Amino acid sequence: MKNTIGTSITMTLFGESHGPAIGVVIDGLPAGAPVNLEHMQARLDKRRASGTISTARHEADVPQILSGVKDGHAEGTPVAILIPNENVRRQDYDRTKDLARPSHADYTAQAKYRGWQDASGGGHFSGRLTAPLTAAGSIFLDLLEAKNIHVATHIADLAGILDDPFDEAHLKKQMNVLKKADFPVLNAKQGDAMKAAIEEACMQQDSVGGILESVVTGLEAGVGEPEFDSVESLLAHAVFSIPAVKGMEFGSGFALAHEKGSQANDAFYVKNGQVRTRTNHSGGINGGIANGMPIVFRTVIKPTASIAQPQETVNYRTNRKAVIRISGRHDPAIIHRAAIVVDAMTAFTVADLLQQRHGETWFTEACR
Amino acid sequence: MKNTIGTSITMTLFGESHGPAIGVVIDGLPAGAPVNLEHMQARLDKRRASGTISTARHEADVPQILSGVKDGHAEGTPVAILIPNENVRRQDYDRTKDLARPSHADYTAQAKYRGWQDASGGGHFSGRLTAPLTAAGSIFLDLLEAKNIHVATHIADLAGILDDPFDEAHLKKQMNVLKKADFPVLNAKQGDAMKAAIEEACMQQDSVGGILESVVTGLEAGVGEPEFDSVESLLAHAVFSIPAVKGMEFGSGFALAHEKGSQANDAFYVKNGQVRTRTNHSGGINGGIANGMPIVFRTVIKPTASIAQPQETVNYRTNRKAVIRISGRHDPAIIHRAAIVVDAMTAFTVADLLQQRHGETWFTEACR
Amino acid sequence: MKNTIGTSITMTLFGESHGPAIGVVIDGLPAGAPVNLEHMQARLDKRRASGTISTARHEADVPQILSGVKDGHAEGTPVAILIPNENVRRQDYDRTKDLARPSHADYTAQAKYRGWQDASGGGHFSGRLTAPLTAAGSIFLDLLEAKNIHVATHIADLAGILDDPFDEAHLKKQMNVLKKADFPVLNAKQGDAMKAAIEEACMQQDSVGGILESVVTGLEAGVGEPEFDSVESLLAHAVFSIPAVKGMEFGSGFALAHEKGSQANDAFYVKNGQVRTRTNHSGGINGGIANGMPIVFRTVIKPTASIAQPQETVNYRTNRKAVIRISGRHDPAIIHRAAIVVDAMTAFTVADLLQQRHGETWFTEACR
Amino acid sequence: MKNTIGTSITMTLFGESHGPAIGVVIDGLPAGAPVNLEHMQARLDKRRASGTISTARHEADVPQILSGVKDGHAEGTPVAILIPNENVRRQDYDRTKDLARPSHADYTAQAKYRGWQDASGGGHFSGRLTAPLTAAGSIFLDLLEAKNIHVATHIADLAGILDDPFDEAHLKKQMNVLKKADFPVLNAKQGDAMKAAIEEACMQQDSVGGILESVVTGLEAGVGEPEFDSVESLLAHAVFSIPAVKGMEFGSGFALAHEKGSQANDAFYVKNGQVRTRTNHSGGINGGIANGMPIVFRTVIKPTASIAQPQETVNYRTNRKAVIRISGRHDPAIIHRAAIVVDAMTAFTVADLLQQRHGETWFTEACR
Repeated sequence: MKNTIGTSITMTLFGESHGPAIGVVIDGLPAGAPVNLEHMQARLDKRRASGTISTARHEADVPQILSGVKDGHAEGTPVAILIPNENVRRQDYDRTKDLARPSHADYTAQAKYRGWQDASGGGHFSGRLTAPLTAAGSIFLDLLEAKNIHVATHIADLAGILDDPFDEAHLKKQMNVLKKADFPVLNAKQGDAMKAAIEEACMQQDSVGGILESVVTGLEAGVGEPEFDSVESLLAHAVFSIPAVKGMEFGSGFALAHEKGSQANDAFYVKNGQVRTRTNHSGGINGGIANGMPIVFRTVIKPTASIAQPQETVNYRTNRKAVIRISGRHDPAIIHRAAIVVDAMTAFTVADLLQQRHGETWFTEACR
Repeated sequence: MKNTIGTSITMTLFGESHGPAIGVVIDGLPAGAPVNLEHMQARLDKRRASGTISTARHEADVPQILSGVKDGHAEGTPVAILIPNENVRRQDYDRTKDLARPSHADYTAQAKYRGWQDASGGGHFSGRLTAPLTAAGSIFLDLLEAKNIHVATHIADLAGILDDPFDEAHLKKQMNVLKKADFPVLNAKQGDAMKAAIEEACMQQDSVGGILESVVTGLEAGVGEPEFDSVESLLAHAVFSIPAVKGMEFGSGFALAHEKGSQANDAFYVKNGQVRTRTNHSGGINGGIANGMPIVFRTVIKPTASIAQPQETVNYRTNRKAVIRISGRHDPAIIHRAAIVVDAMTAFTVADLLQQRHGETWFTEACR
Repeated sequence: MKNTIGTSITMTLFGESHGPAIGVVIDGLPAGAPVNLEHMQARLDKRRASGTISTARHEADVPQILSGVKDGHAEGTPVAILIPNENVRRQDYDRTKDLARPSHADYTAQAKYRGWQDASGGGHFSGRLTAPLTAAGSIFLDLLEAKNIHVATHIADLAGILDDPFDEAHLKKQMNVLKKADFPVLNAKQGDAMKAAIEEACMQQDSVGGILESVVTGLEAGVGEPEFDSVESLLAHAVFSIPAVKGMEFGSGFALAHEKGSQANDAFYVKNGQVRTRTNHSGGINGGIANGMPIVFRTVIKPTASIAQPQETVNYRTNRKAVIRISGRHDPAIIHRAAIVVDAMTAFTVADLLQQRHGETWFTEACR
Repeated sequence: MKNTIGTSITMTLFGESHGPAIGVVIDGLPAGAPVNLEHMQARLDKRRASGTISTARHEADVPQILSGVKDGHAEGTPVAILIPNENVRRQDYDRTKDLARPSHADYTAQAKYRGWQDASGGGHFSGRLTAPLTAAGSIFLDLLEAKNIHVATHIADLAGILDDPFDEAHLKKQMNVLKKADFPVLNAKQGDAMKAAIEEACMQQDSVGGILESVVTGLEAGVGEPEFDSVESLLAHAVFSIPAVKGMEFGSGFALAHEKGSQANDAFYVKNGQVRTRTNHSGGINGGIANGMPIVFRTVIKPTASIAQPQETVNYRTNRKAVIRISGRHDPAIIHRAAIVVDAMTAFTVADLLQQRHGETWFTEACR
């Protein structure tokens, strides 16, 4: 399906970094779903570059709704969202034209599109494409919140600096902290240390990565499919779509390699008539199906590939060796901007799963 | 799509642990593709239980081809493969009827199917369903080998015991070792230590997990899609379909969280006219597209959920608390059996990607 | 998707005329749906060859359920249905080997599969493949009937002999007549004339075609999609899958070419609180969406391509000209057997549409 | 898939009649495909209203390419095409607000979207949505022409006035006539009679329909799938997506009901080394697969539903009876405008089929 994702609800993504606009078409959004542009803008602002720890390419990123929305509600027909590209500076890329930036998509784009692609600023591979995903995700996050399902992501680890962990007893409070935070951490002091590490990397003409931890609360048991469309499969498909993601683990994840079954199993018990598990090593998913506990997963974000240091590379048209010095406008870290994008792709996946289960009228049976 | 996976080539999976048969329908297999039943049986044997480190449920697992194959070659029409269930002992499950085995799918199946499901032996969620996937995967592995693309998986880490790592300089030799190995390790001595650890866990009525490492060599640059159908997204979708997989990382994976961009980037160079990278922190994938280097990923397999120790749980029909003692026939580890299943899902994904790119005649243009 | 059809519910078809078995996998069938084998057999019997007006290839066509059904109800997991091929006589086809039967798929199969296909008896293109579709369709017909939605098809026109038309005032009674009929007509006398025409064609070593008319009652307004997944689009996609179908029209269909808008429009009115239309030129579909009136469409079935008369043709391997005399066992007409297949594909499409709209629990919310 | 159609190439449609813009996203267009804006405009002009026989709503319909095109060639990434709505007059619809226009989608949209839809001018159901389809179709028509595959459609019958039939011996010349024609007929005199009939219907505050006949030449044998994705199924799915289409027949179509097999079968012969058929009753399709002969089909277009005469109807919010007088700007016939839309959907379907068969590099292997 290439640039369309989803089953009952789909998103179709388009645009390049230096074209006139980027955008997304959401299809299958249930009629009556609220579309709140203030929330959308606030979430886009979280994704946007800002301050000393981000790229100097500043764009307003004001989304335009072209269709499917009337008086703040989805009509049920496709919702097209457009974000114009304002701050296009193709000349930044002229010096490095045809040089494959290491760990970027320049070389693979050439291999795939054989020279027909627009390579400026990464073209269709640019991180800018996550802006329409965030705009769309904002609608899904609102949709889920109306059903008391909440999604939040924090930086669990940036270059070895750890945030406070999620704590099931205080999850509601923690998620509220993240909703308001400019920088997605639970512990502001650790957040400051992370920012300092980013700035330091920047001064060294280098970049840093880290680990995001995400949680979904309020999702009913029974959602998902055995095997191919397991909740893990669908979340992984969606989250690995975000550039820079190189790994993902659910619940205890890779730590399960060193645990015994007796340690890793989550005992069931009943609390207030609800089946729950004592622990959540499974990350809220058994046999591919949500079990009613919080869905928990962690995502590794690689250090930004664009660094100002000279790097060995090749010219992908001539196959000659070269040294590349990437100037332009780049982030020494993108993990803090990626958190809301992970939220967006997660909310999309959960909404799609709920709609598959409950039909296109799942969100509201009410007539207008 | 629930129980169908793929785009240009699809697999549709069916069956339950204790029904008459399990099976798979492969659609889109290119006409003329070899279908080698000896190879299929050999790979099924790798997946099968054996010796003291596996479940006592022994089945021949002899696949029957119902359609789509003539004289050892695919006809181009759907290939249905059936594996009869021979050694069905429903009574093993009577004692634990309606009790939710911890970290199993019993409770979530009840939440999803509301009592209509066949719960015996895990029903459709059973690990037995990986047998038809392996049978199908064998065809894809042969298909890729005919194109000089090779897939192999070893146990990198079982309960802390490490196998030798993949070594790009000796990859061909290492992959041959794995092809012949009964127990999928490069270092036989470490393999013996792993087996001992499994037996020890068994004696403790417990189970162990571990980490699989997989490699794909010979895949051309340019395969895959930006964003939604990135090679990572598609491989993750497929591999997370395998029960017990709880995490996946590509290239340096989670270690990238603690690296700088200058360390993590893979410099390009030219060798014998081919663009290559000096390192492979990216696992052979840039911007979601294969870059021609080996695809490398690691998969965590949780410890088997079925353990003989008494465990706290609930009766999922009455919501009453209970203690479960799982007898039946179970594996103290499944990681060694899972290796070929990861190979199968990987080969399927790679073949599907190649066919999307090169069309249904990619495998052979030759007429018969 | 090739051999898989559907969105929320899917069918995957496999098998060849002269292989060991043909079959279908239904995925997405709602848990708790009744699976009635007697009804299935009765509907398969309607499709089967019988008497002097059909092929001499008689097979019991007894379906085997391999998975997904327990105690007469769907489990919610894939339902695999197998129909063994019993009466295989490959030698019938030896004489005509490599000769392209006119208006059959022999030549196009060769063009597509380049010699790798199994050509005996039409292989995967054989009309026998409609047997598993009918078996699956029986489940969907039962599903719809439980919701008071009924599907029926009669032969409106066979070689110019007309059956009584559907009459909205007596539709319930007419549909009951068809349910019990061996030969799908409303007017038994006209049915006898049709049978005589078939026998006459048979004696002339020739064959006849005709027009089927189908009706769906009880379908709620609001089902379907604008444009691409209009009810017309989906029904046409499904019904044109049946071999021998060469045309389809909804409501007044081709007659609309000679009507004015003032004649063709269906005026709305309210009856017992329900919005209805005075006429039904639209066949129950406005803007691609069901309007609550009966869905009505007509399907043309071409005369059977296999006739005993000598025909001009080519050898598709040598490109030499040839004369073919088709012996074997063939029908002088298949339209009476095709009626239940149209019902099956229609019921499938309607059930899929309802499940897309109302979710996987649309059929029953009840737990077991 | 709702508002996305296709397999290897997809189109995603969005927009409403009276929103800011309508558009389409094409995904999977092969890198290097020419995108000719002059051709696109010329084809959009064919679809546009003009003269006395069309609606008075005149819009320039100038498409904007937002992504995926560089220097007149497809980049291989999604192509988003936007057509702004210029001549929006919502007030035209105020008087008839909430009244269900007979044989329009107002009532069914209300049933489906429960009051959340934008009903002005038909909203998402408007015939205006065929403008982006035509823009996209222009790219596919150019793509096919570059491969010597041609698509053309004429009005075979308008209110009983017949155009000259397609004649295989002069097809090339006939298709050229249609390419240049403003009004899609082969016989200009008959075209004048048709226009007079349209004007007469207009003066009577009425409307007319008719039958389109389409042909595809140059398509290789072997394209298409047995059963579910037969060429008939896919073309019907695509063409029934066009509003006002109520029937479709391939080759001899409904006339086959009155033919014997000996008359209806198409004998094979060899001409210049190519297998051909003496007749083309099958419309170029055997067993769902193209046989190399011209694909021929006919499509019935119902008379425009919007007529100025008073009509009986209901208010769909109150269920009260009403009389509607549709003023606004409407066509007394749309069949002449629909011809290019049928071409567009046909070219899309054929291009998608070719790309499924030959892969994403089918169009050009050349590098830039």
